[in-house]
Amino acid sequence: MTATIGVFDSGFGGLTVLRALLRRLPQARFVFLGDTARLPYGSKSRRTIARYAAESAQFLVREQGADFLVIACNTASALALDAIQDAVPVPVLGVIEPGAAAARAASKSGDVLVIATDATVQSHAYAAACRAQGLRAIEKACPLLVPLVEEGWTDHPVTAEVFRIYLDELLAAAANDSLNPDALVLGCTHYPLLRPLIERTIAHRAPAGIQVIDSAESTAEMAVRLFNGPAENSAPGAPGRPELRFFATDSVDKFERLGSRFLEQPVKGVELIDLGG
Amino acid sequence: MTATIGVFDSGFGGLTVLRALLRRLPQARFVFLGDTARLPYGSKSRRTIARYAAESAQFLVREQGADFLVIACNTASALALDAIQDAVPVPVLGVIEPGAAAARAASKSGDVLVIATDATVQSHAYAAACRAQGLRAIEKACPLLVPLVEEGWTDHPVTAEVFRIYLDELLAAAANDSLNPDALVLGCTHYPLLRPLIERTIAHRAPAGIQVIDSAESTAEMAVRLFNGPAENSAPGAPGRPELRFFATDSVDKFERLGSRFLEQPVKGVELIDLGG
Repeated sequence: MTATIGVFDSGFGGLTVLRALLRRLPQARFVFLGDTARLPYGSKSRRTIARYAAESAQFLVREQGADFLVIACNTASALALDAIQDAVPVPVLGVIEPGAAAARAASKSGDVLVIATDATVQSHAYAAACRAQGLRAIEKACPLLVPLVEEGWTDHPVTAEVFRIYLDELLAAAANDSLNPDALVLGCTHYPLLRPLIERTIAHRAPAGIQVIDSAESTAEMAVRLFNGPAENSAPGAPGRPELRFFATDSVDKFERLGSRFLEQPVKGVELIDLGG
Repeated sequence: MTATIGVFDSGFGGLTVLRALLRRLPQARFVFLGDTARLPYGSKSRRTIARYAAESAQFLVREQGADFLVIACNTASALALDAIQDAVPVPVLGVIEPGAAAARAASKSGDVLVIATDATVQSHAYAAACRAQGLRAIEKACPLLVPLVEEGWTDHPVTAEVFRIYLDELLAAAANDSLNPDALVLGCTHYPLLRPLIERTIAHRAPAGIQVIDSAESTAEMAVRLFNGPAENSAPGAPGRPELRFFATDSVDKFERLGSRFLEQPVKGVELIDLGG
């Protein structure tokens, strides 16, 4: 039997994680749910995020038969991983731990920067995960980056200026704490679309070099290690052509239109579901 | 008996409308609901917005005894005014019609610009309301302005640059249609906080002059005309000290912290409610 991997995000940013998974597990069956009616999670409270995420996880497991869940949303991973694990009887992988593990592999100084949404930063989940890896982390909320990506300004002077401001504040905070950061974790699934702009800005502002960590890639790598057993034992359906189903709780048109940018292939046939609320 | 006026928004931007109402109806009782667990409405579909708004309106009328409702949210007014009117047995006033009426009073050329969220613009509710007033309107979605206001960058060079880009696109579209706009409607309750920046930018880019229309003010004026009867007949409680209750569906702390900027007075004692979802 082919393994079914459920991938969940509050929106479609998590399609960057799905893209990384597709490259590594081409024979799995993927079911992606974007809880778009209730996004963004990044500005909401832990209690609300936990309820939304648990309901979404239950849909993927109970109604879509997911054997594993990847929580492709930093905010839900940071604030609701426990709640999701309690809500469903299958293994659940979030994006925080793989991001921190990749930062440890990349950092020589042991000091890392993390950019994320308000809620992710306030949870200090990255700081805790980095500490568990023996790293010191400085986190910063960058609430303008998601709307800039969604406006399509991924290579725009305004976005470069906004990121420069955020980066300078981060570097000043690091200097203030006598830290010497050499890695920057992209703690939001929207941010990989800004990676070229981020790397250009870093080259100007931090000439000593800061390596950019895309937690979508590191999460997919960890998922492969965890899930490969069942996937390898599966009967290949059509090799190299994974099965894909998309669900959203709102605005299928917008999901298909914007989602394609994140998945880097057309997103079609998105099905509208109602999780109540 | 004192009239109870229910004021509803998806978030706290509608506090700019409440502020305008408070100045004009100091003896009324106000109940404000921010459906913050489900914001922003601006990027969601009509069906979802209508359901959320109807549930919120029912809370204000059935549970809080509101005699009138002011929908202090452009998106809900644009997409869900009918659904709200069907859901509750009291008079309901949105912000679109008052904004269009104020534009008619201000415009000599009959050509007006409207800036708003994605969903409000896609509904073309302002264009229709302006047409009913004999005006021609060009609408533009400005999705970055709300996050910039919420970041607190109301007087920031980045915000000025973003607004300049949006304004230039609007003026180019107007010129392309041979229109000669002399009024700009702020079609989102967050935008009044940008009014000084918007007026400065207009002075540079449109020297012939464009008058800025704050629909919060025009809505409050229309509310006074509609609701003044019951309010005038009411026994004054404490003159000049209106009764105020605040409800939110999420993150009371954030509501109190950010809300004070919009109301221009402290927002305290916000009560958390659950509308399901």
